[in-house]
Amino acid sequence: MIDAMQPTFYYSITVFYEDTDAAGVVYHANYLKFMERARTIFLQQKGIKLSDIIVQDKVQFLVRAASISYERPARLEQSLTVATKITKFGRASMHFKQNIFIDVARPETLVCSGDIVIVCTDLQYKPCAIPERILGEIKA
Amino acid sequence: MIDAMQPTFYYSITVFYEDTDAAGVVYHANYLKFMERARTIFLQQKGIKLSDIIVQDKVQFLVRAASISYERPARLEQSLTVATKITKFGRASMHFKQNIFIDVARPETLVCSGDIVIVCTDLQYKPCAIPERILGEIKA
Amino acid sequence: MIDAMQPTFYYSITVFYEDTDAAGVVYHANYLKFMERARTIFLQQKGIKLSDIIVQDKVQFLVRAASISYERPARLEQSLTVATKITKFGRASMHFKQNIFIDVARPETLVCSGDIVIVCTDLQYKPCAIPERILGEIKA
Amino acid sequence: MIDAMQPTFYYSITVFYEDTDAAGVVYHANYLKFMERARTIFLQQKGIKLSDIIVQDKVQFLVRAASISYERPARLEQSLTVATKITKFGRASMHFKQNIFIDVARPETLVCSGDIVIVCTDLQYKPCAIPERILGEIKA
Repeated sequence: MIDAMQPTFYYSITVFYEDTDAAGVVYHANYLKFMERARTIFLQQKGIKLSDIIVQDKVQFLVRAASISYERPARLEQSLTVATKITKFGRASMHFKQNIFIDVARPETLVCSGDIVIVCTDLQYKPCAIPERILGEIKA
Repeated sequence: MIDAMQPTFYYSITVFYEDTDAAGVVYHANYLKFMERARTIFLQQKGIKLSDIIVQDKVQFLVRAASISYERPARLEQSLTVATKITKFGRASMHFKQNIFIDVARPETLVCSGDIVIVCTDLQYKPCAIPERILGEIKA
Repeated sequence: MIDAMQPTFYYSITVFYEDTDAAGVVYHANYLKFMERARTIFLQQKGIKLSDIIVQDKVQFLVRAASISYERPARLEQSLTVATKITKFGRASMHFKQNIFIDVARPETLVCSGDIVIVCTDLQYKPCAIPERILGEIKA
Repeated sequence: MIDAMQPTFYYSITVFYEDTDAAGVVYHANYLKFMERARTIFLQQKGIKLSDIIVQDKVQFLVRAASISYERPARLEQSLTVATKITKFGRASMHFKQNIFIDVARPETLVCSGDIVIVCTDLQYKPCAIPERILGEIKA
């Protein structure tokens, strides 16, 4: 395990009707979708496409564990910011810290906070080392 | 095209928070999910598993067209019934009529009505004839 | 009914894992979500927020009918463009034509085409005339 | 905090296309939906309807925290069993342990394991004590 000094990546999403539920707020499971959107774009900006690594590297990234704390509700048409940071690299894993804010400049508007562990697997879903090329690009 | 005299298949679903939106009712796109659940179980009861035909017959059923009319809202924790009927078979297609009711014995509780066209394709998504074995089981 | 000469509004979305299914393509119901996202942003750019009109005007826009034709599959990490146009205004309704393209400059990349009828209702879900203020802003 | 000696509640779900993603397996966020379905039916069988307590008791149950460990993938058309147990009651909270199995009789088929903290709130989303009547029915 190597600790990472990675910068934070910011990604904005808008809350649509599809994201909300009858309690008038964003449905709790949907924050996991928002976090994955942010990780996907984060990796794309590093030059890593999830659809390419399946073909080229015969690997995929799966969620191994997710822990979310819900702090305050978000509502229809709010614009949210997902702040994403890699906190640790393992041989086959990456640990992400992802906080979602209504206003990223005001920490008291934190909507939820997630710790997401991603594991690299082969196409039979067996964990395997993250390919060097990919690891290099993510750390660059 | 051969007209079908198929019986109606009834399938019940419960509305959970995940199905609703901030308007307090079932989110409109989710009725397409309810209809697909009903078609899937309908086919399973005919002996057709969607995951098997991919492997055994190298075919899959895709939605080619969907037309839905929304009549009245459904709400959290209501139990809905999806009434499903095949109205037409084509060489590569099946036409379904699917009505969703709050109380299937009272037509005035119709929530929505869908016409769904399913096409049989090979694994490269090209339309192909529905295999005889499958067609036989569905018509049985 | 008044025919509308409205310009086309273009909205881009990225296909994430959440949008796909085990057939390897975008799940058919999710295109209705993409279309609603586009309509929501289209209205926002006209100065209409769905969450505001509920409070200020005591009205909401619901989907009354949707008809979709699926032309070709879209896949993980593709960027899609939703082309949205209002084709007709009724007293209580708006008719949208929404086409989704892989490459909006190449009509042969059409993924799906939707005709969506939106109805204006009061907060008891009864149809009512679209408020003049809102209609004015949408037509502006 | 009082430890609970609650029995385990079993709830079956079928995996449909809507639940899967392009990796060919159930999309990770959807397990949170499966768990909520099980909690909802669990409470219904205790006589508690989420839609009723909003009206009668002016309270709602929200997810305060969720921690999930993903052990093995589940696939299209598999039947899964959600085993649900309350492990702790707080003044305003309930702690659930929810395990999802492919075959509940074989622990080695564990798909995922969740610890879900539910908080009782008023309709302004402020935590409040679980009403005695509701607590009594759940513990009965």
